[in-house]
Amino acid sequence: MPHLTPAYFRRYNDRIGKGFIMNIRLIFKVLGYVLLVEAGCLLLPLLISLYLGESSWHSFALVALLCALSGLCLSRLRVGAAVMQGRDGYAAVALAWIGLSLMGALPYVISGAIPRYIDALFETVSGFTTTGATILEDIERLPGGILFWRSETQWMGGMGVLVMFLALMPKLGSGAVHLMRAESPGPIKSKLVPKLGHSAKILYGIYIALTAAELLALRIAGMSWYDAVNHAFTTMATGGFSVKNDSIAAYAHLPAVAWIITVFTALAGVNFSLMFLLLRGRVRQVLRSSELWLYMAILAVATALVGVNLWLEHGATPGGALSDAVFQVVTVMTTTGYATRNFALWPTFSRLILAALMLIGGCAGSTAGGVKVSRVVIWMKSLRRDLVRIIHPKHVSVITVDDQAVDENVISSCHGFLVAYVLVMIVGALVVGWDNTGFESSFSASLTCISNVGPALGSLGEAGNFSTLSVLSKGVLSLEMLMGRLELMPILVLLAPSTWRNK
Amino acid sequence: MPHLTPAYFRRYNDRIGKGFIMNIRLIFKVLGYVLLVEAGCLLLPLLISLYLGESSWHSFALVALLCALSGLCLSRLRVGAAVMQGRDGYAAVALAWIGLSLMGALPYVISGAIPRYIDALFETVSGFTTTGATILEDIERLPGGILFWRSETQWMGGMGVLVMFLALMPKLGSGAVHLMRAESPGPIKSKLVPKLGHSAKILYGIYIALTAAELLALRIAGMSWYDAVNHAFTTMATGGFSVKNDSIAAYAHLPAVAWIITVFTALAGVNFSLMFLLLRGRVRQVLRSSELWLYMAILAVATALVGVNLWLEHGATPGGALSDAVFQVVTVMTTTGYATRNFALWPTFSRLILAALMLIGGCAGSTAGGVKVSRVVIWMKSLRRDLVRIIHPKHVSVITVDDQAVDENVISSCHGFLVAYVLVMIVGALVVGWDNTGFESSFSASLTCISNVGPALGSLGEAGNFSTLSVLSKGVLSLEMLMGRLELMPILVLLAPSTWRNK
Repeated sequence: MPHLTPAYFRRYNDRIGKGFIMNIRLIFKVLGYVLLVEAGCLLLPLLISLYLGESSWHSFALVALLCALSGLCLSRLRVGAAVMQGRDGYAAVALAWIGLSLMGALPYVISGAIPRYIDALFETVSGFTTTGATILEDIERLPGGILFWRSETQWMGGMGVLVMFLALMPKLGSGAVHLMRAESPGPIKSKLVPKLGHSAKILYGIYIALTAAELLALRIAGMSWYDAVNHAFTTMATGGFSVKNDSIAAYAHLPAVAWIITVFTALAGVNFSLMFLLLRGRVRQVLRSSELWLYMAILAVATALVGVNLWLEHGATPGGALSDAVFQVVTVMTTTGYATRNFALWPTFSRLILAALMLIGGCAGSTAGGVKVSRVVIWMKSLRRDLVRIIHPKHVSVITVDDQAVDENVISSCHGFLVAYVLVMIVGALVVGWDNTGFESSFSASLTCISNVGPALGSLGEAGNFSTLSVLSKGVLSLEMLMGRLELMPILVLLAPSTWRNK
Repeated sequence: MPHLTPAYFRRYNDRIGKGFIMNIRLIFKVLGYVLLVEAGCLLLPLLISLYLGESSWHSFALVALLCALSGLCLSRLRVGAAVMQGRDGYAAVALAWIGLSLMGALPYVISGAIPRYIDALFETVSGFTTTGATILEDIERLPGGILFWRSETQWMGGMGVLVMFLALMPKLGSGAVHLMRAESPGPIKSKLVPKLGHSAKILYGIYIALTAAELLALRIAGMSWYDAVNHAFTTMATGGFSVKNDSIAAYAHLPAVAWIITVFTALAGVNFSLMFLLLRGRVRQVLRSSELWLYMAILAVATALVGVNLWLEHGATPGGALSDAVFQVVTVMTTTGYATRNFALWPTFSRLILAALMLIGGCAGSTAGGVKVSRVVIWMKSLRRDLVRIIHPKHVSVITVDDQAVDENVISSCHGFLVAYVLVMIVGALVVGWDNTGFESSFSASLTCISNVGPALGSLGEAGNFSTLSVLSKGVLSLEMLMGRLELMPILVLLAPSTWRNK
């Protein structure tokens, strides 16, 4: 480390200011803050373990301490007057999520719940990224505290850990907007209100309110408090972890449960800014959202198609087919991934529809994954423009979404996003394919991970059980989950050599 | 029909000149020319049928007459001084290919070789688009003349029927460039030499020379003249139709055959303009082609990966694995689709590699299908630019390929192409999926058709046999083959309502 004289800082900040070098201290400082948040979040499962009298409380205490200490050290890094740039935000968010996952996996290993670290890491990444894929074969044998931590990781990752931090401590300076941008999903990022910290608070406020509402609804429907909290957490995060081996099928005796979960997952897949507008009474603006309409249209059409397919080709009654279809379509399109049926055994057509829904995912600014409905809107409008350009070459047009012109750079990066998504998906499928689990399994495993859905199709089955895969596959799928959750660019920026090159 | 007074023509041409209405007469006139070409091409199988003493000569004579008569009528349509616009070119090419296929299917039906028209149409479209998917279960029972027509359709479609017409009759006027643009594959269209007819002649010259060279090589290797002609036709077109039920595996006793075919398929997947440059002695310019290098790199890496996979996981000897891998990788990536092995039974990893190669396809300006290697080059460079934009926001850059700046509109339409390709592929897979043939089969059937490869994976098998599919599936896959061969836009222009709207 160089001598930290004022002259050093001047030179250092000057070079950072000119964009010459990466703001390395700043991104590690952000990692420190995030670890402090994680330490705080670990107190909840610690308390539950103590309450349930489980020995696993030791592991939570130990890891919370570790997070708190390393977080404190990193967060005290001196950064001078350095201002965060866009790429620093991307790199910081990527690094923070990796650090969060590496630490979050420790309680599983220390408590002995998941003996191998790579498995624990997969499970943790699957949690934070709200994917819901699991390597656990018998979920119910795990202690209550551990299962709660598993669900809580999804809830934390759903709205975002940095957004949570900004809501708690909104004084990170003007560069913090880059953190929120890098962590929030969707092609167009905008603040709800001028103040960033205030925006973060509003988002978490809505998130908490909906979680609480679902918790109550599930409790009233007959779930235990414990089960209700866990499922409310993983529903609102569109995560899909359950505390039951049979997922939501375990509550078949409580008919209201599946419907409550359907409603709340569908809500969780909607852009949270629309809910904010709704709270402000701007109903007309909400109803003008083309993304919302397309989201609902896709849900309706997919439900109808799957329902008819199950009825005609799978021997289901019309009513049974429809209720199975609506639950599974909503849970897959919102990338939640709960199951009431083993849809890996459904007819080809239904499985293909589910795969297409996995790719699309929910709305921008929701907790859902996938490429997002708003990107589909932009792609379709852009394709239409290409066609019009050929038919009427002199016709010049700007793409508008909800009466607002979309910047050409946004359209271009939307398109680049598809290229990167397809590329990562193919590479991931190839790596999993080496394990020789079959075409459908490998392909859908890669798709389900990058889209943060959870369950795969084929031999990897509806429970989303990835325990049989090789260490390499688990590692690559974990990276895919992170890439999917952060929408590729942050991880690519972190991995790009030119980010780290000091010109 | 209105009174064809001079005043009428003035008004009509005026409106066309202002781009107000579609040049409908002109596009039907082009269809007429193409039918005349088809009539001429039908004389070859007619002669072969007569020589072989087969009764199917009647059907060729009848259809040739039909084509000639309708072609004559349409080609005499008066279009005044109308000049072809870009969209007219797109629509004309799409209409011409559809007309060509509708007519080309007739000999199969009339001769009784393929009794159902939808099957014959599928086979014809699969021929003209150089796909090579078949609905025939026993190819060898068909008369020699019919099988020759089947191979000839591929050879015609390979370099393009309109390009053939332009080579024969280069006096269609200045708008003809739009026809060649719409029919030739690749993101960037350029003429080889200033005169369009001359360019078309050069392309066909190289095509014929290579076909003749392969024909001789196959004959020397021990094939009969008839088999050699057929396979030379379908190799150079990257079509993949064979006159044997076992495809190239039927020539296992002639070891040189597979290698000759490997070399010529690999050549057919290369941009023909590069061969022109090579003939002109501009070797350095050829070696600077990034598309060529990427094409060869992908072939080499894919061969190595598949070879190792077959060796380690499929119980093959290292030598056998390598020779199987090189043949199958080359034939699939060039979208030819011959088989020496039933690769539907290969390990998952190899099948996924083949599927990825199907998507990529050969080089622009070759006879191969797929999205083309040059588009992959542009996508990758564009993605890299997006990343650099985040890391160095002030960095402004233009994408260059082979030291030439690529227009932003080209990049944008390259991206739109991926969106449309994925969309069409998903819709096609869904339609085939309704037949409940399995995920891998449906997905790969749609992919293999839009990429003009031929054989699918899964239960549809390595022989590319689509006979069991429903009429709807066959129709949609036929449309996909046409969309893939013409690179989507011509068919979309033809189908777009605004093309036909007279404002």
